[in-house]
Amino acid sequence: MDEFALIRHYFGALTAARSDVVLGIGDDCALLRPTPGSELAVTADTLVAGRHFPVDTAPFDIGWKALAVNLSDLAAMAASPQWFLLALTLPAADSVWLAAFAAGLRTLADQFGVALIGGDTTRGPLSITITAFGSAPAGTALRRSGARPGDLVCVTGTLGDAALGLQLRGAVVVPTEADDDERFLQARLDRPSPRLQGGLALRGLASAAIDLSDGLAGDLGHILTASGVGADLNAALLPMSAAFARVHVPAQRLQLQAAGGDDYELCCCLPPAQLAAAQTRLDLPLTVIGEINAKPGLRWHDTRAGAPAPVLHGYRHFYENDG
Amino acid sequence: MDEFALIRHYFGALTAARSDVVLGIGDDCALLRPTPGSELAVTADTLVAGRHFPVDTAPFDIGWKALAVNLSDLAAMAASPQWFLLALTLPAADSVWLAAFAAGLRTLADQFGVALIGGDTTRGPLSITITAFGSAPAGTALRRSGARPGDLVCVTGTLGDAALGLQLRGAVVVPTEADDDERFLQARLDRPSPRLQGGLALRGLASAAIDLSDGLAGDLGHILTASGVGADLNAALLPMSAAFARVHVPAQRLQLQAAGGDDYELCCCLPPAQLAAAQTRLDLPLTVIGEINAKPGLRWHDTRAGAPAPVLHGYRHFYENDG
Repeated sequence: MDEFALIRHYFGALTAARSDVVLGIGDDCALLRPTPGSELAVTADTLVAGRHFPVDTAPFDIGWKALAVNLSDLAAMAASPQWFLLALTLPAADSVWLAAFAAGLRTLADQFGVALIGGDTTRGPLSITITAFGSAPAGTALRRSGARPGDLVCVTGTLGDAALGLQLRGAVVVPTEADDDERFLQARLDRPSPRLQGGLALRGLASAAIDLSDGLAGDLGHILTASGVGADLNAALLPMSAAFARVHVPAQRLQLQAAGGDDYELCCCLPPAQLAAAQTRLDLPLTVIGEINAKPGLRWHDTRAGAPAPVLHGYRHFYENDG
Repeated sequence: MDEFALIRHYFGALTAARSDVVLGIGDDCALLRPTPGSELAVTADTLVAGRHFPVDTAPFDIGWKALAVNLSDLAAMAASPQWFLLALTLPAADSVWLAAFAAGLRTLADQFGVALIGGDTTRGPLSITITAFGSAPAGTALRRSGARPGDLVCVTGTLGDAALGLQLRGAVVVPTEADDDERFLQARLDRPSPRLQGGLALRGLASAAIDLSDGLAGDLGHILTASGVGADLNAALLPMSAAFARVHVPAQRLQLQAAGGDDYELCCCLPPAQLAAAQTRLDLPLTVIGEINAKPGLRWHDTRAGAPAPVLHGYRHFYENDG
């Protein structure tokens, strides 16, 4: 098989049957039937080796993560995922690498019923750009700009796991030597779960939402700016996984949970009257961590007895998410 | 200005006002209003420095070409262009480079009224992935699979200019020293004109179409395969620009015109009864170069007296188009 036959071979299996795909891979464009009465939500994110994932990341996980970070953007808008395009730049067409990469993509794509509809493959330094498409009934998509004073600031799941997993990566020489906590934290870094059910559950309830890719402080900052409001957050309330609680160094907690990045949880703002409904509808924990108010800026507090005032430093990953 | 403020500054001007853009740049996704009754056409192409354009290409031309090659795919489907996403990977945010790149994008985007609706910027080796969106009334998009025996094989414009321009590039040290022919050929390489009017003109007339990115032989081959047919082409009929006619080495003509690539003209198949209507509707020359027939394969002829049988070698650009 030549290089492009190889690629067709591995990615052909990703073209799930969907009645809204009129024409998939193999022509100049894909042809799609948009959902009547809906708005189309589209997003594109690029992952560059060594920047958005460690260079030793398994190809299965690279495929998974490249799609996951895009589906996470659809989740944040409360859009139902439909299709994706893959633009893959590879140093060489290696069939072992391609098979594992495609399997990672396919596993996640199948979980949410999204179909690969086209894209491009080219030779060059490893980089993956995925464009993901979804739909939301007109007027229902969640935006960053709707937060209002009095809204509760909430996050899904737990924060800081991926950042701690990245910090540990150097210490974990052979995966089989890692213990369960380390494996959990690595998986949170390498195979994030896009919170699509969470986004849909928040539709009609949340006033604003964003997905957490760069870290809570920076991403919530986008909501505050877009909405023209501020927030007071309680560092003591940031939700920790059991593994994070056992493994982390307490002095690093706030940095990891609020500025570490790669959480791919949702942060939303909710009028207090909607909290119970949101928590009932969501299939994962939704934790209140603070409140929106009219004074611009993000202020950190810590309600634990004797806790020092929390200070967030300008800490960044060795790589950073740009989008 | 920090890096991302710079990028917002340069690309903000690309968000043309369109009533079908509900929400553009600045949230997790763009929100779009698809055209009722239409199919959505989408395509993504990546350009890697040194592979899809010479490394000495001016940033204005890189911006232009990155959008042009994608609009060319919409043209080949007879889709009306609407929007695009830009995923830009840059070694560094250089304001002079960004201003020129954005100006190239904007000049072409404005020409066709397409709006930048989002994307991603990241640091890494220079690479540009654009996803372009268009629409076509349901059932009217031109595909590769509709060619039938007896159809005429036609091409828009002229072939081989870009390939000859690339061949000459090494010899053209300073642009001001280039003569008019050289400048024309360089412009055909660096600033291709997507044949959007041509695609729309062929709607309802052509049985199949493709845009010429890799060269006529390879691209027509995709139509033949998708349609289950063959073709006989007359090398003597391949249309040349006046500059190409003056500058090229005759022994290289077929290689440049049929395998050089980067033409970004349309190749279409037309029932003979539709030829006159197509030529009338098109705003550029449409030249008959051969005929579709039932026998699989692509056969070259040359009707000029004394011409040797044309032989196409496996010649490729120093870089090749993969999509």
